[in-house]
Amino acid sequence: MNINSPVPVGVLGGSGYVGQELLRLLAGHPGASVAFATAESAAGERRDGVGLVRIEDAPLARAEIVLSALPHGVSARYVQEARGLGKRAVDLSADFRLSPDAVYGLTEVTRPQVATADLVANPGCYPTAALLALLPLAREGLIDQSREVVIDAASGVTGAGRTLARDLLFGEVAEDFRAYAAGNEHRHLPELKATLAREGGFTGDLVFTPHLLPVKRGILETIHVPLTRAIDRATAEGIYETVYGNEPCVAVLHGALPSLKDVVYRNRVAIGVAAVANVRRPRLTVIAAIDNLVKGAAGQAIQNMNVMLGLPETAGLTC
Amino acid sequence: MNINSPVPVGVLGGSGYVGQELLRLLAGHPGASVAFATAESAAGERRDGVGLVRIEDAPLARAEIVLSALPHGVSARYVQEARGLGKRAVDLSADFRLSPDAVYGLTEVTRPQVATADLVANPGCYPTAALLALLPLAREGLIDQSREVVIDAASGVTGAGRTLARDLLFGEVAEDFRAYAAGNEHRHLPELKATLAREGGFTGDLVFTPHLLPVKRGILETIHVPLTRAIDRATAEGIYETVYGNEPCVAVLHGALPSLKDVVYRNRVAIGVAAVANVRRPRLTVIAAIDNLVKGAAGQAIQNMNVMLGLPETAGLTC
Amino acid sequence: MNINSPVPVGVLGGSGYVGQELLRLLAGHPGASVAFATAESAAGERRDGVGLVRIEDAPLARAEIVLSALPHGVSARYVQEARGLGKRAVDLSADFRLSPDAVYGLTEVTRPQVATADLVANPGCYPTAALLALLPLAREGLIDQSREVVIDAASGVTGAGRTLARDLLFGEVAEDFRAYAAGNEHRHLPELKATLAREGGFTGDLVFTPHLLPVKRGILETIHVPLTRAIDRATAEGIYETVYGNEPCVAVLHGALPSLKDVVYRNRVAIGVAAVANVRRPRLTVIAAIDNLVKGAAGQAIQNMNVMLGLPETAGLTC
Amino acid sequence: MNINSPVPVGVLGGSGYVGQELLRLLAGHPGASVAFATAESAAGERRDGVGLVRIEDAPLARAEIVLSALPHGVSARYVQEARGLGKRAVDLSADFRLSPDAVYGLTEVTRPQVATADLVANPGCYPTAALLALLPLAREGLIDQSREVVIDAASGVTGAGRTLARDLLFGEVAEDFRAYAAGNEHRHLPELKATLAREGGFTGDLVFTPHLLPVKRGILETIHVPLTRAIDRATAEGIYETVYGNEPCVAVLHGALPSLKDVVYRNRVAIGVAAVANVRRPRLTVIAAIDNLVKGAAGQAIQNMNVMLGLPETAGLTC
Repeated sequence: MNINSPVPVGVLGGSGYVGQELLRLLAGHPGASVAFATAESAAGERRDGVGLVRIEDAPLARAEIVLSALPHGVSARYVQEARGLGKRAVDLSADFRLSPDAVYGLTEVTRPQVATADLVANPGCYPTAALLALLPLAREGLIDQSREVVIDAASGVTGAGRTLARDLLFGEVAEDFRAYAAGNEHRHLPELKATLAREGGFTGDLVFTPHLLPVKRGILETIHVPLTRAIDRATAEGIYETVYGNEPCVAVLHGALPSLKDVVYRNRVAIGVAAVANVRRPRLTVIAAIDNLVKGAAGQAIQNMNVMLGLPETAGLTC
Repeated sequence: MNINSPVPVGVLGGSGYVGQELLRLLAGHPGASVAFATAESAAGERRDGVGLVRIEDAPLARAEIVLSALPHGVSARYVQEARGLGKRAVDLSADFRLSPDAVYGLTEVTRPQVATADLVANPGCYPTAALLALLPLAREGLIDQSREVVIDAASGVTGAGRTLARDLLFGEVAEDFRAYAAGNEHRHLPELKATLAREGGFTGDLVFTPHLLPVKRGILETIHVPLTRAIDRATAEGIYETVYGNEPCVAVLHGALPSLKDVVYRNRVAIGVAAVANVRRPRLTVIAAIDNLVKGAAGQAIQNMNVMLGLPETAGLTC
Repeated sequence: MNINSPVPVGVLGGSGYVGQELLRLLAGHPGASVAFATAESAAGERRDGVGLVRIEDAPLARAEIVLSALPHGVSARYVQEARGLGKRAVDLSADFRLSPDAVYGLTEVTRPQVATADLVANPGCYPTAALLALLPLAREGLIDQSREVVIDAASGVTGAGRTLARDLLFGEVAEDFRAYAAGNEHRHLPELKATLAREGGFTGDLVFTPHLLPVKRGILETIHVPLTRAIDRATAEGIYETVYGNEPCVAVLHGALPSLKDVVYRNRVAIGVAAVANVRRPRLTVIAAIDNLVKGAAGQAIQNMNVMLGLPETAGLTC
Repeated sequence: MNINSPVPVGVLGGSGYVGQELLRLLAGHPGASVAFATAESAAGERRDGVGLVRIEDAPLARAEIVLSALPHGVSARYVQEARGLGKRAVDLSADFRLSPDAVYGLTEVTRPQVATADLVANPGCYPTAALLALLPLAREGLIDQSREVVIDAASGVTGAGRTLARDLLFGEVAEDFRAYAAGNEHRHLPELKATLAREGGFTGDLVFTPHLLPVKRGILETIHVPLTRAIDRATAEGIYETVYGNEPCVAVLHGALPSLKDVVYRNRVAIGVAAVANVRRPRLTVIAAIDNLVKGAAGQAIQNMNVMLGLPETAGLTC
């Protein structure tokens, strides 16, 4: 890593929760510097030593790589513009996640393709945790595809962005907990199903129910997996250990279940397992936790950027 | 209701979270007065105008009915003692919930038996929500017993009592969320299964996973129900409406899902439904919410007491 | 109290946090019933069994007394309209708090005038706690008016109403704490100063700094009082005991300091005292706590209403 | 900074909140590595890639510098032992803060002495914020020492450590706020007064009242300063700017007040000012915020260590 000439990085959308997290992480990145950061309403303000500019004024040419935390539906246009100038890009929006033009940047799964990609679609926060938990089991043929995989996921409010909605007021969220988009209505579901099929050969049914937690950050997913054959907890942990043993950003727990405090402010997924007792057919319950703003967004984007640039994969990240 | 001579009520275990809630509710009860309240370490202190006494000093004879919020394993002995003096009792511990000597006091389901009972076992908090959500579907034969019913439940910390445990420190729980007793290890499960079988004829498999929420009170259960035949959301709501339409303490939502803030500080279960899209076999997701200290404990105990005494069922309660 | 014919009460502004609290409390009031409740955007919805109507459709004539939780600047007009129909009123906004046309309804201080008033201005939440803490000392001539009284007050977010502001999002307020309107800029200050002068003869300087707490409800004020002569803690507690000993809604602590959990969901002010060591001139620190929605708003309004109607002063209230 | 041979650092007391924060920060420090970390009950566990050992097994000789987060009263002995082996040390306990044998490590104020010190006493969390706010005014002769300086400070629960106390349970702290040690009873006060006198020539009276906030981390202090002459807000900000303009870890706000979210997870103090209106004698209200675990403890210790070792002062720190 060449400390004397850090890579100039452009940040599109620097004032939302994800954008702020990108700037916070890049401020401590030893091999990167922020060439510019854009903001709509906060233009003119400073964040972590960087002056925010309007997107029209972004000096795209100065960046070697562009990270976009712009909203879904808006991001694609500006990412394309940067690509047109020959810039590589990581898009944190959903705009390219189902597109053949981009590499899906679930780093631990698609690292080789990310390394050479010009355009990486950074995964959604819910899919990141679910995929890292399910793919090792799917690839082993352990998931009984004739039975439904049930995922109850709970996210802190920063997952909803800084949207000004009455539902997101402190007076409404504090001391509350609720499900939303129940009945498989969440927009992350197609991304999750497509990737499970492509990377894991899983084409069974999913039931995905997100919930809103009264915390700022963090996602915990409780994943109910019907099994093709009974395995005990240690065997399941061993499967994860085999796949992730050398991964710096995956923590496989042994005889314990992860909680949000294991992962917040870290670029880490933590995975724990319980075998289900007193049921007629074999089942596992897998718990996966991430920080939605880090491994679920800004951190994984920087992890992907590091891979693309040949920097140490965890540079600037605490895993 | 005779306001001039309120029924004298004895409270065993008045210093824990449930006991405090009993005293708070009884303080506003127009047809009851607290004859005594016991506490182990807080004896000598006052709560809501009542002086706490050591359990050895409790003037059992002065009460017409005894409510016990003593710990599991301790409660039975003192409840038996009160019964020996001819007192009726509601036991909020788990000690009698599987016993043929007590009526299981899920008021909406067992009201006639409660009315004449001398000893009522107040249901556990998790089972209360799950049973009120599942029994109407089970009785209609709608639950496909060949597939597992998956319940992810999340509870505020008062569900664990005022136990002094590092895991329950604010510094550990705030901004955190975690599962515990995963894999069907929770001690409420036999109570839940026994009652589902007895009252609903359901003998299929359950997967029950409780979680700890960073809130003080409230339980939300996300209940995944495999169906014997497809029904849409409105039909499901109609089934609940038929069963609970006249119940003062059950709120059936229409086209909405309950959240904790709908139920905290109220003796109410709120139930909402979503039909699950994009799955091959029919399924419902049912969400049920209660205040674990009220409908899940102290409130339901008072509701049962009111039924036993012939008082208006919601006297002293906000539903 | 005549249970057979409860007093019909009209509620103006039933959908904000204060209005919701009025409806919650009135639902459990044994001597009052809600004749109507108005709401702007939530008209057509139900709250605690009451259907909300647009303010134009409010059947003012049906109410014997009107409680207005309308916003400052809006309330006066509708309260005047109700007064024009001969209705008595309690206005919870600031509109009449400095007006000679209304009785300032700090119940413990102005009870006789409230009893016969046609129009009561319900005090602000911050002034309620400060006045109940300071007036007994001021009336004893104990406050050194040549030195500043410093008040640091902290409030839960419901004090700001259900306003849709980015500053009040959960993602901004959770895990945060901040001062606002520092430098004596808060709009409650004239009300506080005028009442201290009128009721306590205090005309010295105040420094009032409010803070926003990451809690839903509750106000705690830390009040630094310069003394004309040294008194110890027990003497100070004795002064409060003399004034408030028979008050059902004031808790004077002895050798302890109040916290929010002593007062939330209760119509109570709790007051505790510490003598200040290691200073050259005598000083007390007085801590006062209330629930901003109850004793700081809806509860005190009902307390005033009860006094006006000759009902038991705490009917419908938990103190 | 020589990346190839990071300085080996020993951590005493690695399992409390401060010790965990030291390990988290050192894990990302480009010029330091953890030679060992001790823990009493958690020995054998790993934190941030470091295996915790019992203190008797600590290989003191391997460290070039020792950071001690041991409890007050325990730390001195082990720090002396390390000093006896010729190791330099930063003691985060209170044991040496009033001792002539140690340099008081308020980095921005005592940097030259820290650079050459063998033993640095890391300041307490409350004094850090108060001193950085008050010293610039005291040195300008702006504080009227005939009037009391009133400080209301509020801290997140990690300030109390991982002590197992009922008062610190989530069920007690959440939705609560309370003062403690009111009346100048807090043990940090002598440290604060001694340093104000030594570094600022201030010998007037202080009234210091700490409060417990329902947040995990962060301290906000509202400091009421009587002035010898009136100055407006901009002038006050200018004084701070003059003193701190080149300090990387001090943020002087202009026309704004700091909040916890400006400082948590950062090694930064943020300072904002308000002139007080409508008082007869001139006054400022100064607000200072820090993360109690970072600038108030582990971060400042590393800042001091960096200065001692000649490393870049903010290496491993986000300011």
